[in-house]
Amino acid sequence: MSKFNFSGLKSNKDTGFGDNFSGRFIDKNGYPNVQKRGVGILNRYSWYHTMLNLPRWQFIALLISGYIVINFIFAMIYFLIGVEHLTGINRSSLMDEFTDVFFFSTQTFTTVGYGRIAPVGFLASLVATFEAFLGLLGFAIATGLFFGRFSRPRAFLKFSDVALISPYKDRSGLMFRMAPFKNTSLTDASITVLASFEITENGETKSSFYNLKLEVTTITSLILNWTIVHYIDEQSPFYGLSSDDLKTIAIEIIVHVKAFDSIFSSDVVQRTSYTSQEIIYGAKFEKMYNPDETNLFTVLHLDKINSYFPASLPDIS
Amino acid sequence: MSKFNFSGLKSNKDTGFGDNFSGRFIDKNGYPNVQKRGVGILNRYSWYHTMLNLPRWQFIALLISGYIVINFIFAMIYFLIGVEHLTGINRSSLMDEFTDVFFFSTQTFTTVGYGRIAPVGFLASLVATFEAFLGLLGFAIATGLFFGRFSRPRAFLKFSDVALISPYKDRSGLMFRMAPFKNTSLTDASITVLASFEITENGETKSSFYNLKLEVTTITSLILNWTIVHYIDEQSPFYGLSSDDLKTIAIEIIVHVKAFDSIFSSDVVQRTSYTSQEIIYGAKFEKMYNPDETNLFTVLHLDKINSYFPASLPDIS
Amino acid sequence: MSKFNFSGLKSNKDTGFGDNFSGRFIDKNGYPNVQKRGVGILNRYSWYHTMLNLPRWQFIALLISGYIVINFIFAMIYFLIGVEHLTGINRSSLMDEFTDVFFFSTQTFTTVGYGRIAPVGFLASLVATFEAFLGLLGFAIATGLFFGRFSRPRAFLKFSDVALISPYKDRSGLMFRMAPFKNTSLTDASITVLASFEITENGETKSSFYNLKLEVTTITSLILNWTIVHYIDEQSPFYGLSSDDLKTIAIEIIVHVKAFDSIFSSDVVQRTSYTSQEIIYGAKFEKMYNPDETNLFTVLHLDKINSYFPASLPDIS
Amino acid sequence: MSKFNFSGLKSNKDTGFGDNFSGRFIDKNGYPNVQKRGVGILNRYSWYHTMLNLPRWQFIALLISGYIVINFIFAMIYFLIGVEHLTGINRSSLMDEFTDVFFFSTQTFTTVGYGRIAPVGFLASLVATFEAFLGLLGFAIATGLFFGRFSRPRAFLKFSDVALISPYKDRSGLMFRMAPFKNTSLTDASITVLASFEITENGETKSSFYNLKLEVTTITSLILNWTIVHYIDEQSPFYGLSSDDLKTIAIEIIVHVKAFDSIFSSDVVQRTSYTSQEIIYGAKFEKMYNPDETNLFTVLHLDKINSYFPASLPDIS
Repeated sequence: MSKFNFSGLKSNKDTGFGDNFSGRFIDKNGYPNVQKRGVGILNRYSWYHTMLNLPRWQFIALLISGYIVINFIFAMIYFLIGVEHLTGINRSSLMDEFTDVFFFSTQTFTTVGYGRIAPVGFLASLVATFEAFLGLLGFAIATGLFFGRFSRPRAFLKFSDVALISPYKDRSGLMFRMAPFKNTSLTDASITVLASFEITENGETKSSFYNLKLEVTTITSLILNWTIVHYIDEQSPFYGLSSDDLKTIAIEIIVHVKAFDSIFSSDVVQRTSYTSQEIIYGAKFEKMYNPDETNLFTVLHLDKINSYFPASLPDIS
Repeated sequence: MSKFNFSGLKSNKDTGFGDNFSGRFIDKNGYPNVQKRGVGILNRYSWYHTMLNLPRWQFIALLISGYIVINFIFAMIYFLIGVEHLTGINRSSLMDEFTDVFFFSTQTFTTVGYGRIAPVGFLASLVATFEAFLGLLGFAIATGLFFGRFSRPRAFLKFSDVALISPYKDRSGLMFRMAPFKNTSLTDASITVLASFEITENGETKSSFYNLKLEVTTITSLILNWTIVHYIDEQSPFYGLSSDDLKTIAIEIIVHVKAFDSIFSSDVVQRTSYTSQEIIYGAKFEKMYNPDETNLFTVLHLDKINSYFPASLPDIS
Repeated sequence: MSKFNFSGLKSNKDTGFGDNFSGRFIDKNGYPNVQKRGVGILNRYSWYHTMLNLPRWQFIALLISGYIVINFIFAMIYFLIGVEHLTGINRSSLMDEFTDVFFFSTQTFTTVGYGRIAPVGFLASLVATFEAFLGLLGFAIATGLFFGRFSRPRAFLKFSDVALISPYKDRSGLMFRMAPFKNTSLTDASITVLASFEITENGETKSSFYNLKLEVTTITSLILNWTIVHYIDEQSPFYGLSSDDLKTIAIEIIVHVKAFDSIFSSDVVQRTSYTSQEIIYGAKFEKMYNPDETNLFTVLHLDKINSYFPASLPDIS
Repeated sequence: MSKFNFSGLKSNKDTGFGDNFSGRFIDKNGYPNVQKRGVGILNRYSWYHTMLNLPRWQFIALLISGYIVINFIFAMIYFLIGVEHLTGINRSSLMDEFTDVFFFSTQTFTTVGYGRIAPVGFLASLVATFEAFLGLLGFAIATGLFFGRFSRPRAFLKFSDVALISPYKDRSGLMFRMAPFKNTSLTDASITVLASFEITENGETKSSFYNLKLEVTTITSLILNWTIVHYIDEQSPFYGLSSDDLKTIAIEIIVHVKAFDSIFSSDVVQRTSYTSQEIIYGAKFEKMYNPDETNLFTVLHLDKINSYFPASLPDIS
């Protein structure tokens, strides 16, 4: 189907991605497209990993609804024990009783304990004792989750949405770029890029993986944008690939960046991928930083990360 | 006793496992079979390591029983000081008194402090002051323990229960496999495999350790299952080992996996071991992943990790 | 403009600093002189990184003012609901009412809950329930921030304010020094030094980067001061640089230190830089440590880190 | 003074220990014998490092005394504001008044807030508001400190008190040993050993450092004891050293161990040192582990770590 062949290239068989899949191996955010089956849901998830990955508003909604549900359950228990075992309850109506019992529960769970309503007798006191204990442990766990969430080291890298095939040296190069978009401090960044090509041989469709040779694989300080360049020479699996080939062959470029965050003192990684549809043939990135007017610092224009312009490629046939 | 000899192989003398032990060096879960003696129990355990390793229900049971015991002790102290130094105590019977004193203690320890019962006078107030302080510190420690427990980086790898001697290339290979079973994100996994053979020489039984050469020792992304393959050639200590030898020679395969968990940004390790009894002679693993019907993602069947079928080995005599 | 040229030297093109900037690349404290634009302020900052970097008094001021503002808002809400839904309010004047409502709010937020003032009825109780919940979460977050701040691994290195060009061997050397100034325990320290020279070629001004070769790049224990020495031989970009050149050429020496803090069990990094103005031509550092009078330990004089004396350089023309 | 010389040996000049000190470079627990001067006490200490290193009882004593002092100060403030601004105070005597005020303070600081005593009026309420806030922040900090203390990765290695010069191969070897004494899980341990010799040359006394070549420098699993062996051949600075030399020459052996703690997923380091007085000439260590009677596990006798017996060294003159 394609004029080029890979026979002279050494494929990478140890990627961990398997070989019989024609969709996207990892999604734009770096998560693998894998579904696990055959284990119960409780064993399949690390609830802590899940909590760390939950979007902020979902995490907060979960905390609030948990708070309401637990207090509702305890209110029911106190109600069943009998409101006469709580002092200060407004007993005008069942509704009023339940309201007071519910708020007694919240005052116990949060350990506010105003005392306007207080337990009398063994059973109500026992439940309140247990509820206050549970409340404190609950907030202990919430403290841990909050800390775990915001102390979780993340790279905060923004990748260009597309990769380009740009004129480079006497030929062309595959390029994409990234930039740190938050006030992090990344040093010693390194990158590995893998390309998967779906190849049909003897009627069987298989994915082959190739490590892409890069012009620069490590950088001392990741302060400005970093344009990753793969020179397309005879050793490249992209050699001879035409604009049309990009539309017909399923290609995926899998990117893996590792850097040292010197504020957290921890390694951080981030991944992304580009499929054939996200590779632009014949284009060049615009420069995205320049000195400030005052010439005292450099300005990095993060909104320009996807800015490119057409650029014709040399004909090497 | 065995027809093969190890004379041409270089054994590994720096394993740290010692040399005169004929049982299992490490158990299935990776813990070494070593007992420490000669130091007091307080010095022998790092209580924090212990707390991190405790099963969840034991940890919770420990917290609850600690809570009850501490409050019981404080209740005794208040009782000895005299219930007349607490306001609002129900003094109908000794039992009622103690109940109220106990719940006053829990209300102090959890800092709920309804105030229906409150200390009056120096001594009761002093004890309550100390108890509230202790309560807060206790919950501070519990917070730390909770966080320590769930933020503890773990690999969450499932290993196959058995290792197989499978047909491989023109000969045979020792194989076992592993898969990540939770929603972790492991990259840069590496593995080392050590085999111990109990050899009787000049009437003395000794364990010899050999590093097993593997076909692949590192993998970029640990997303699907990973089958570890040791090719049994002339350089392998398994060369010439027959099905019967497996029943008579004490062998232990010690596995050590290290990977980078990109959610925790931390290295994680996991160990396991296979003894002679856990090595199946002449069998092959079934494939455990396939594309989804929709062809959009890969399905990993974790329940198939132990699935294998018989496969006859080539005769190389 | 300068008599020396760099034609024989290999410049480092992978520093991540860009190439068209004539100011200072990183400031004295190691932060890069880069401004990010083109993303909203919420996306541009990692609030957690910001909180970790905030000076102590600003952090505390932020906590206190947050505490006041939140309680003021809740006081307003209770006031709007109506003070008749709170027991025990002093209703002599509007001011007195608001005062009591405000302090009811603080007693709820901190979960003190004396109970002299307590909510009655659905609405006030509901708001109080929410406030106590918010209070606990707020303190959970504060706990995390405190821990994040003080457990953040930092190198605590003091660098000499200036670098010297000192007599060294038969010629001269570029020297600066550092010392750990707190009770940390740093081991396995390593250093890399980069020099940027602003060079005007064909009317275009560009920064070129050179890795400086050091006499010692790693040190086992960073206990006393460490004097970093770059021997200025023919391979050095500083070769032939005169005292006057230092005044006219924009040079920046960028220093990057990495060490292992054995108390935190974590790698720590620190950066600094020296510009032309901070390089002293013809001077030597004074020794800054000596044995104690008792000869039992070594004394490190941190106040001497900037002590140097003039020393004439050999003439090598 | 000694018959041997070091002229043929390459000394290590990059140890970071300095060169003019004749006492002990690091103490038995691995802390360097260095005193820092010339900076204020506040800048000289990282209070967090200090808190992590404080012995347990000192840490607890500090917490308790801080708690008492703070409450005493607040009690004074409430007293100065006037006890009439607190409800429920026992006003029989000044002493009773102060007692009640003090306990009101502790009930506020710990947020127990029984409410038997409660603030009335602006000033007392304001101070109470601030105290409750401070209390919560204080416990937030205590939580962080507790967690920091017990989650601090430590190696928990026990070293033999002495090093031995034992018969080894055809000659002799310098040996000492270590063992993990707690329920940790250490892997990939590595060791470096440095020896300092005080040498008087031309009337000047100087310390020279030599890296000792070890038989084994890394070990896969640090489960049992590890005996470190330095073979004393012609390349060793100990070559030709007699029993008498040990008494007259100031020698220090500086030991640095690094290992990976797989429970904390963190590197841990530990250091120690041996001086001439702690080197025994002509002795051998007893074996300190053996299989259990049941032959199911290995027993490590930690109390035997210092057990050795005399062993005559070969005469190589």
